Amino acid sequence: MVKICIIGSGNVAQHLIAAFLEAEKSGSKIQLLQVYCRHKQSLTKLLPYESLTDNLNALIEADVYVVAISDDAIAEVSGQLPFKNKLVVHTSGSANLESLSDHNRKGVFYPLQSFTKGKDIDFKNIPICLESENPTDYQTLEQLAISISDHIYAINSGQRRALHLAAVFANNFTNHMYALAKDICDESKIPFEILQPLIIETSQKTSTLPPKMAQTGPAIRNDHKTIEEHLQFLQDKNKSNIYKILTQSIQKYGKEL
Amino acid sequence: MVKICIIGSGNVAQHLIAAFLEAEKSGSKIQLLQVYCRHKQSLTKLLPYESLTDNLNALIEADVYVVAISDDAIAEVSGQLPFKNKLVVHTSGSANLESLSDHNRKGVFYPLQSFTKGKDIDFKNIPICLESENPTDYQTLEQLAISISDHIYAINSGQRRALHLAAVFANNFTNHMYALAKDICDESKIPFEILQPLIIETSQKTSTLPPKMAQTGPAIRNDHKTIEEHLQFLQDKNKSNIYKILTQSIQKYGKEL
Repeated sequence: MVKICIIGSGNVAQHLIAAFLEAEKSGSKIQLLQVYCRHKQSLTKLLPYESLTDNLNALIEADVYVVAISDDAIAEVSGQLPFKNKLVVHTSGSANLESLSDHNRKGVFYPLQSFTKGKDIDFKNIPICLESENPTDYQTLEQLAISISDHIYAINSGQRRALHLAAVFANNFTNHMYALAKDICDESKIPFEILQPLIIETSQKTSTLPPKMAQTGPAIRNDHKTIEEHLQFLQDKNKSNIYKILTQSIQKYGKEL
Repeated sequence: MVKICIIGSGNVAQHLIAAFLEAEKSGSKIQLLQVYCRHKQSLTKLLPYESLTDNLNALIEADVYVVAISDDAIAEVSGQLPFKNKLVVHTSGSANLESLSDHNRKGVFYPLQSFTKGKDIDFKNIPICLESENPTDYQTLEQLAISISDHIYAINSGQRRALHLAAVFANNFTNHMYALAKDICDESKIPFEILQPLIIETSQKTSTLPPKMAQTGPAIRNDHKTIEEHLQFLQDKNKSNIYKILTQSIQKYGKEL
């Protein structure tokens, strides 16, 4: 049985709480003992009042303390924990293992997903990236991760930094492409929903074909005529600049089948 | 009953042939009479030999002639058709209505999807964008489109140009973001599949939230520390240039909820 305390009440903390409670119900060998949050009211929908504390010194004995708070606060809060030599993990994609206080054994329990508040999510499909200072702690984290997800990866701090950066391209920048596309649609009174099936198909293709091989469009075809037409059409300097740079990058980079 | 001849044997032509045959079978009031292709062998898997012709002059009487060939060839091939005042449509997202020959009544039947050869696709979900010179022809095209898709849109040539450009952002550029993300993963020996659930979630979110509202990440948070770390990590000039420009664009453009 792995006993857990969670520290935090934000987006990631709430999704983890819900996932651990669900795992407990379905008989996983884990137990969510307690959650620390500054304002108990913020979590009374998820947990009974007696499972909550707003006092770090009142944290009870557990096997893992999951610090699910903003990157900036990890060093300070982990330094305030009133115990020593326990397993304390953070949930951040960009914070270093070393950002945790030296008082305890360090680890990372990083669920790679963009959580939207209030939107239910099937944790089973969310990859969880684990790191620890020693193999025994890794096993504990693995047991915890397996209880809520089917996709567990050992990822060290260097890899996690790279992964977080890759996620910026795959998620944040991709979403910005959608935003620019919607803008172009709006200007011509075209419903953005027309692009939906194409957007879904493009994203799903990544599971069957390396994206480099799946590249289509005027850039990879070296279709100068269409590229020129598009650049003429784009009055907005920011969009035409992005168009040029990404077209060049595709041409330098990719190769159509 | 709408009688159809298709001219072409490429990717779009083959997907349309399969979709029309399927619609015929399920009782739609359409009939695929004949397909023109330069090499009959290329389509014998889809159609009986007698439904194929490699001679434009042997094309039989139909209500709609669907010219599903590359943009560059539309003017020439439509000019070679041996009849007048028939409804002739192309299937291109970027070619003008005017690229069709004046000998016949012009129209566009543009399925907005990135077709992959050999990959089956459910046409019901593919948006079809229609344009014609007169209302009667529009009705004919609509009848045709409804037989294979649930999503029909009236889109004029100007809008179609904008839509095609928007699709470059939503599909081609997005796919390039995936390619760059995979590159970053490969360099750090991280399996790209870790990003899959995030990629799918990001694309699906477009149906429930305008992308501008769904924007997350260091750029929109004005998280200079993370942005600086990412730029330092990116040794490759092309990637760091793209990172900078898209970060600026997100900051100029979007607003986190």
